[in-house]
Amino acid sequence: MQAHIVQSYDTELSRLDAEIRRMGELAVAQLDAAMDALQRQDRAAAERVVAGDDAVDALEHAIGHDVLQLLALRQPLARDLREVYATLRISADIERIGDLAANVAKRGIVLADGPPVPLAHGVTALANLAGELARDALDSWNARDGERAIAVRGRDVALDAAYTALFRELLTYMAEDPRRITACTHLLFVAKNLERIGDHATNIAEATWFVVNGEFPGERMKGDAILAG
Amino acid sequence: MQAHIVQSYDTELSRLDAEIRRMGELAVAQLDAAMDALQRQDRAAAERVVAGDDAVDALEHAIGHDVLQLLALRQPLARDLREVYATLRISADIERIGDLAANVAKRGIVLADGPPVPLAHGVTALANLAGELARDALDSWNARDGERAIAVRGRDVALDAAYTALFRELLTYMAEDPRRITACTHLLFVAKNLERIGDHATNIAEATWFVVNGEFPGERMKGDAILAG
Repeated sequence: MQAHIVQSYDTELSRLDAEIRRMGELAVAQLDAAMDALQRQDRAAAERVVAGDDAVDALEHAIGHDVLQLLALRQPLARDLREVYATLRISADIERIGDLAANVAKRGIVLADGPPVPLAHGVTALANLAGELARDALDSWNARDGERAIAVRGRDVALDAAYTALFRELLTYMAEDPRRITACTHLLFVAKNLERIGDHATNIAEATWFVVNGEFPGERMKGDAILAG
Repeated sequence: MQAHIVQSYDTELSRLDAEIRRMGELAVAQLDAAMDALQRQDRAAAERVVAGDDAVDALEHAIGHDVLQLLALRQPLARDLREVYATLRISADIERIGDLAANVAKRGIVLADGPPVPLAHGVTALANLAGELARDALDSWNARDGERAIAVRGRDVALDAAYTALFRELLTYMAEDPRRITACTHLLFVAKNLERIGDHATNIAEATWFVVNGEFPGERMKGDAILAG
């Protein structure tokens, strides 16, 4: 602990920031790799993504550790405390994005040995939207850019609409040919995972807004001031 | 804030505890009500559950607020800090249990106007298991009982196995009669939600173990000591 005490507070916050950045990049890379493995029906690549989730989990664990240590050794107040609180929440959201990417990869393993993946185009489009939202949410956090964060939140609506359309398409596909039921069911869950990634991107965006403005943005969180100032 | 300063620290921790207790009871009650509405195909009851999720979200918001205030005004250390940290994590898990219960209710709304719910017995059994795990995890937290918490974690394996069995059964059911595809797809997601509730119960159990023992239990969290002592 001694090393931490002599470190400046800013250094500790920068370290947390760097950890979040690394964790975010890793989770988004996991999503890209999972989708790539799914499309190419590459079992080995999908298995690597599943194994790679441990690294994301380890980073969340490290961040939790560092946050506890920072809270114990410093007494952050106002915006500093919001930073630390938001870091904890964001790390939990990134961890879930990593989990959801790993789950896409798991379904990629199941689909690897079957016929070509149905509706591959629609699933890819959804994944691109989800990946963009996650990247933009993380960028808005890294830049502490509240306006950019709010834009991410708005775009999640488009992802939800794309998800609903794909969901219906998959149901129709299954009804037309019951032999596709198992594959399409896995794709339904892949689609759901992608839609959930958008929700986590939205959470990250809202946490960013909270840090910048001292309160959660309206509508979803009803603008209740939390330790503003 | 003045009121808080004169309050004893123990009172503040008790308040957080009471909030978690209330939030946990509410989320589990939401799950019970969602399943009841699903089984009885009662649209109005399902809609009430969906609306009721706001109360769970509001409690998470209140807990986040109280945790920030406690961190700002006190400087909790060691076990006290772990308590506060675990409270934050547990409130996030309960919030997700509430979300998942509301999602079960949403699917209950879709299924309310159709034919009788297929495989109702299997879904009910899964919900009972998930509800038991959530209740036991919350009880182990309320009692700060590490051993009881560890038992919850072990029982999540049984829930996962029941989920996998039901998943296969639903796929077979759909293949036999494609007219059931839409209803069964919603039930697949209901089953998935119930399986996820078990994961959140496990998280709550692990957080309990962490508070009692100063480190996360092995295997899933690799026993790394976090501010033990």
